[in-house]
Amino acid sequence: MSEDPLVIFTPSGKRGRVPAGTPVLTAARQLGVDLDSVCGGRGICSKCQVAPAYGQFSKHGVTVAEDALGPWNAVEQRYHDKRGLAAGRRLGCQATIERDVVIDVPPESQVHRQVVRKAAAVRAVTMDPATRLVMVDVAEPDMHSPTGDFERLRRALLDQWEIGEVTADLPILSRLQPVLRKGEWRVTLALHQPREGAPARITEIWPGFFEGPLYGLAIDLGSTTIAAHLTDLVTGGVTASAGVMNPQIRFGEDLMSRVSYSMMNEGGAGEMTRAVREALDRLSVEIATEGKIDPGQIVEAVFVCNPVMHHLLLGIDPVELGQAPFALATSDSVEIAAAELGLTSVAPGARAYVLPCIAGHVGADAAAVALSEEPEASEDLVLIVDVGTNAEILLGDRNRVLACSSPTGPAFEGAQISAGQRAAPGAIERVRIDPETKEPRFKVIGCDLWSDEPGFDEATAATGITGICGSGIIEAVAEMRMAGLLDTSGLIGGAEATGTPRSVAEGRTHAYLLHDATESGGPRITVTQGDIRAIQLAKSALYAGARLLMDERGVDEVDRVVLAGAFGAHISPQHAMVLGMIPDVALDKVTSAGNAAGTGARIALCSRAARAKIEAQVRRITKVETAIEPRFQEHFVAANAIPHATAPYPHLRAAVPLPELSFNVGGGGESGGRRRRRRSG
Amino acid sequence: MSEDPLVIFTPSGKRGRVPAGTPVLTAARQLGVDLDSVCGGRGICSKCQVAPAYGQFSKHGVTVAEDALGPWNAVEQRYHDKRGLAAGRRLGCQATIERDVVIDVPPESQVHRQVVRKAAAVRAVTMDPATRLVMVDVAEPDMHSPTGDFERLRRALLDQWEIGEVTADLPILSRLQPVLRKGEWRVTLALHQPREGAPARITEIWPGFFEGPLYGLAIDLGSTTIAAHLTDLVTGGVTASAGVMNPQIRFGEDLMSRVSYSMMNEGGAGEMTRAVREALDRLSVEIATEGKIDPGQIVEAVFVCNPVMHHLLLGIDPVELGQAPFALATSDSVEIAAAELGLTSVAPGARAYVLPCIAGHVGADAAAVALSEEPEASEDLVLIVDVGTNAEILLGDRNRVLACSSPTGPAFEGAQISAGQRAAPGAIERVRIDPETKEPRFKVIGCDLWSDEPGFDEATAATGITGICGSGIIEAVAEMRMAGLLDTSGLIGGAEATGTPRSVAEGRTHAYLLHDATESGGPRITVTQGDIRAIQLAKSALYAGARLLMDERGVDEVDRVVLAGAFGAHISPQHAMVLGMIPDVALDKVTSAGNAAGTGARIALCSRAARAKIEAQVRRITKVETAIEPRFQEHFVAANAIPHATAPYPHLRAAVPLPELSFNVGGGGESGGRRRRRRSG
Repeated sequence: MSEDPLVIFTPSGKRGRVPAGTPVLTAARQLGVDLDSVCGGRGICSKCQVAPAYGQFSKHGVTVAEDALGPWNAVEQRYHDKRGLAAGRRLGCQATIERDVVIDVPPESQVHRQVVRKAAAVRAVTMDPATRLVMVDVAEPDMHSPTGDFERLRRALLDQWEIGEVTADLPILSRLQPVLRKGEWRVTLALHQPREGAPARITEIWPGFFEGPLYGLAIDLGSTTIAAHLTDLVTGGVTASAGVMNPQIRFGEDLMSRVSYSMMNEGGAGEMTRAVREALDRLSVEIATEGKIDPGQIVEAVFVCNPVMHHLLLGIDPVELGQAPFALATSDSVEIAAAELGLTSVAPGARAYVLPCIAGHVGADAAAVALSEEPEASEDLVLIVDVGTNAEILLGDRNRVLACSSPTGPAFEGAQISAGQRAAPGAIERVRIDPETKEPRFKVIGCDLWSDEPGFDEATAATGITGICGSGIIEAVAEMRMAGLLDTSGLIGGAEATGTPRSVAEGRTHAYLLHDATESGGPRITVTQGDIRAIQLAKSALYAGARLLMDERGVDEVDRVVLAGAFGAHISPQHAMVLGMIPDVALDKVTSAGNAAGTGARIALCSRAARAKIEAQVRRITKVETAIEPRFQEHFVAANAIPHATAPYPHLRAAVPLPELSFNVGGGGESGGRRRRRRSG
Repeated sequence: MSEDPLVIFTPSGKRGRVPAGTPVLTAARQLGVDLDSVCGGRGICSKCQVAPAYGQFSKHGVTVAEDALGPWNAVEQRYHDKRGLAAGRRLGCQATIERDVVIDVPPESQVHRQVVRKAAAVRAVTMDPATRLVMVDVAEPDMHSPTGDFERLRRALLDQWEIGEVTADLPILSRLQPVLRKGEWRVTLALHQPREGAPARITEIWPGFFEGPLYGLAIDLGSTTIAAHLTDLVTGGVTASAGVMNPQIRFGEDLMSRVSYSMMNEGGAGEMTRAVREALDRLSVEIATEGKIDPGQIVEAVFVCNPVMHHLLLGIDPVELGQAPFALATSDSVEIAAAELGLTSVAPGARAYVLPCIAGHVGADAAAVALSEEPEASEDLVLIVDVGTNAEILLGDRNRVLACSSPTGPAFEGAQISAGQRAAPGAIERVRIDPETKEPRFKVIGCDLWSDEPGFDEATAATGITGICGSGIIEAVAEMRMAGLLDTSGLIGGAEATGTPRSVAEGRTHAYLLHDATESGGPRITVTQGDIRAIQLAKSALYAGARLLMDERGVDEVDRVVLAGAFGAHISPQHAMVLGMIPDVALDKVTSAGNAAGTGARIALCSRAARAKIEAQVRRITKVETAIEPRFQEHFVAANAIPHATAPYPHLRAAVPLPELSFNVGGGGESGGRRRRRRSG
C-alpha cells in the first residue's frame, strides 16, 4: 500500500497527508488551514478557491504532477459557466487531492486575511469579524416526528458546520418560517459569535444562497457630529461614509450643558437619548443608500464616544459624570442588540458593540484611539492627543500607558471665536503673516489658491469669505506670535508697537485685521484679544493635561506626538507648537493620525481579537483625573504664555524665530486667562 | 489540643467539624446545608434563622450543652427588638458554634423547601426558582482608580456571594446609579439564573435591604380566556388570581379563524400579537393590585398555551400551523425578557419562560399538563384529557407517554348549543332526569338548590335561568340517554315513543323541553337534535383521539382517566362516560385534576429542575398527529353512537342502566354527525 498523498498549503506552510480523493477544503479544515467557505462545500459560493502549483518544489521537497488534483468536475464547470473562475483556480470543495500537491490559498480565500489599514502607518489588521455568513440545508418538517423549524435549523448547523450552541432573538424567529420556505429549505445565515467558541446567534437570514458581503457600521458618536463608516466585513474596506450633526446640540452645545439639561429637566436624559438614537437610525439608512446596499446587510455597529455620549446612547442618565467622583454607570464594553439602540433598518438581529471607557472623563473614543495608535506597542514614548471639544490624551510606550482628558472647550473648533465658524466652504483654514510687512495671506476651504494668488477673488466669489475655522484661528494666533504682533503673554500690540495699521484698537484692547469687509458684503474678520484668550484657555488645558501625564510618568519630554481627531488632521505641527498646544519636540516627530477614534471603531468592527485586546488594555492604562489634580491648575497657569512661561521649547526655537515681546496696554488687560473654565464637551 | 466541635444539621443530617467560633451560616455553607440568606450574613434578613437543640441526642451520639453556641449577640438583640425572633431561634449568621451542637433548619429557612402543591394529589414540589434576592455592599467610586458602578457591583457579587459571571440589560444599567446612591452603596438585587452555575442576570435592583418576596406570574394563555396566578417565589403559594377574556376573540372565536385572519390580512398576526400583549400587560397590573404588591416585585412570568397562541404571543405568524405538516417555528422552551412580550409594569429586567411545545397541535399547555400530572411517573396506564376548545390528550405510564390533540370544537363549552352559554350565574350546570317520569330537575350556577327544592325560584329570581353551560349540556344529554329519551344513535324520541310531553316536535326532529319559558320572560330551554349532534361531534373527536393513542400504545383499555382543564373540574365522570367522551373505566378511576395546565405553569415558575425535566420529557413523548391518521376518522365514526357503536363499556353498564333503543324518525335524520369538522381552537 502506497503512502497517502502529501498536501502542502501556502502561504501558511501547513502540511499533512490525507487519503487520496479528499477534497481540498476538507484537507484544509483537517490541517487547520484558513480557507473560507460560506456554502459549506456545495460548489456555490466559490469562497474556497485555491491555486494548485505544478512542477518541482525543492523548498518543499515535492514534485507536483499535472494529475495531482482530481479532474475539473461538473460543479466547477457549472460555476465557471455561470460566474467565471480565473485560470489556474479550482474550487477547494470540489477538487480532490490524488497525489502530492502544493496548494496556494489566495488572500481572498482566507477568512482571516490581513488588511493594511492605512498607508501612513502601514499597520496590518487581521480580519476576524464577529459575524460571518453560513449556508445550510435544513430538513423539512415531518408530521410524524414533529420538531420546530428552528430546532431543525440548529440541527443542520451542528451537522453541517459543527456549530453547537445557537440562539435567535424573536425578530429572527418570526422571520424564520417564510424565509426557509422561500429558500426551499436552503438558507444563508448571518451568525454572530462574540468570541471563538461562544454560542452563536443568528442575526439575519436570507433564502437560498446569499453571497453577501456583510457590512458593519463604525460610528464615531461625537458631541457635535456623528460620523459613520459603512465597512465591508470581508475586506475591511470602507464602502461609504456619512455624517450628521448630533441633534442633542439643541439641548446644549457642550457636554456639561447636556448633563445640566438632564439635571434640570425631568426626562431630559430620555429626550436626548431618543434624539441621538433617531439620528443614528436615519444615518444608518442614509449610509446604506450612499453605499448602494440593502440596510439589512448591516449586521453590526461599533460605537466609540465620550462617556457622556456613551451614557446617553445607552439610555443612562449622565448626571454622575457631571460631578466628582465622575462615576460611570458601566465602564466595560457593552454588547447588545442594535435594535435596543433604536437601529430599526439594519438586520433585525444586528448587534451593537460599544468600546469600553477608560475613566469617567476618558471614554470609549479614547479607547478607540488607543486601539488605533497602539501606544502600548510603541518603542519610543508617544503622546497622542485627540483634539476635539474635549481633548483625550494618551502617553505611553511598551512599559506603561497613561490617559486623561482635558476640558479644552470648543475654541479649537472655531466656537467662542469672534469670527469663528465650523470648517465649511468659505472658512479661512490656513493663515500666513509676513514677519516684515505684517501683511496676511490665507486660504479658505473650497479653494486651492492663497489669497494673494491671481484668481483667488474669482474662485471664492461663490462662497465668499465667511469666517475662520479652528485650524485657521490656531494658525492666525501662531503667525501673529511669530510676526511680533502678539507678546509672550498673549497681548496684541497696538499699531504703534507693531508698526502696522492692521493692529486696530477695539475698546481697551487691540485686534488684528485679517480680512476687511468686502464690497459684496463679506464680513470684516479680525482676531480679537478675546479670541486670543479663548485659544489660550484651550491650549493651556491641552498642554496641562499632557504635562500632567508626563509628570505621572516622570519625564520632561516625549519622543513624538500624534495629533488625532478629524481636526488634528488639519493642524499644522509648527503652529500647534508655537502656540504651546503640545510639548516641545522635533517638528518631524509630530504626525497626524487622522480620525483615529473612527479607525479604532473600524478595527473593533473587523476584529474580535482587537476587541479583546482593548478590553484588557483599558484596565492596564493608568488613569489620571485632571479635575482634582492640583498640579493641573499650576500647569494650566504656566501654559497660558505663548508658547509657555517656563518650558524652554528648544526644538521649536531652533526651527522658527519667536520674538520675545511684552506689550504694555496701560490697564487694558483682562483676567479671563486665569478664569478656570468648567469642564465642557 | 481538643478536637473541633461537631455540628449536626437536621433535617438533612449533614454533619462535620468546624473550628470553634464559626458562624452557623458559614458552617452550613461549608457542609452544603440548605440555609437561606439574602443579606449575606449581616444580621438583617433573618432568613438564616435556626433552632439549636439542647440535651442528649443518642441518635446522633452527642450531648449538646447550653453553651454549645456562642452567646446571643447585639445584632440578634437589635433584630429581635425591631422585628422579633421566636423563642429558641438564633440568627445563623450571628450565632457561633463553640461546642458540639445539633441545629435544626426550619422549613422557612430552607431555600429549597418542599411545598405540597395540592391536597388531592399530595405531591411535593421542591422550591428552586430561577430568581433569588441577594443583598450586596458595593464599593464607592474612586476617582483615582476609576471603574464603573456596574463593575464594582460585579466585584461585590464575586467577593460577597462568589457569583462570577453577571450581566444586566440596559433597563437595569440605567437604574443602577440612582439606586446605588439611594441605598448608600447597599442594594438588594433580583438575580436570575436559568440553571445552577449559569451566568446570573440582574433583573431588578432595590436600594438598601429589600425583604421581598419576589413574585412570578403563572399564565395560562388560552384561546378564549387568559388566567394568571400571582405566585410567591419563596413559598410557592398563590397570592392572587385574575383572568381576562383573550381580546383576540374579535379576530376569530377559534384558533383556525385566527390563523385565517392572519392569512387574509396583511399584518393581521401583528395585530393579534399586540392585542394579546396589551391584555397581558394590563392583567399583570391588575393582579398586582389584587395581590396588593408592587408590580415591580414581579420578576418572572411563565406561559403555557396552545401552539397558535404560543406563536402569536412571540410575534410569530401562525400560518404554518394552519396547514400540514403543521410546522412550529420553534418547539423548544423560550427564555426571553418579559419586556419583549410587552410586559411594561413588571420589574424592568423581568424574564419570561414559555414551556416547550410537544408538536404542531400539542402545545406548551399540554406540556404543562404533563408537568403537573406526571404521566411518565405513573405506575398504571393513565389517560389525561385536558378538555377545552381543543382537547389535549396524553396517555402513558413509566414506560412511555403519547400525546395528541383533538379538535373537539367549543360545544363542550356551551357554544354551538341552541340554549348554550358560558359558565356564568344563571346557567344550568347540573341536570337530572327521572327515568320513570322523564321529568327534569337541575341546578344553576349561583344557586345551591336543585330546581325541585323549596326556595329555588326565589333564589334564582335575581339572575333568572339564562341558558345551559358546558357541563349542563353534557349531563342533559347523558341523562336523556339513561332515561330512554335518546337512542343509541343519538336520536331524540318523539312523545309517543318516550311517553312524555317534554319530547316536543321541532320541525322534522324532536327536542327535550328542559325548562319552559317563565312569566318573567326567561327563555324556553330545550335540548335540540342539533345540540345532540354538536355534542356527538365533540365527544367523538375526543374519544377518537384517546383511542388513537391507545392503538398506538397497543391497549384496549386504560387503568384510570384524569380530566384536566377548568372545565374538566365540572364534568361528572359518570355522565362523561355515558356520553362516551372517555373510554370505559371504573367510575372511581376517573378523577379531576383541575386546571392542570395552570398548575404546570406554577411548577415551572417555582422550579428550574421542573423546567429541565419537561424540556427533556417533551422530546421523549410520542407525538400522534390526528389530522393525518386514517384511523382517527374510523374511530370518530364509531364513537358517534352513545356511548359507542362497538366498544362494550362493561364498567359503565355495570354501574348505570343504559336502555338500548332505536327511534325511527321517518326520514327526518340528518347527516351532521358524519360531517368532519375543521380543526378549531
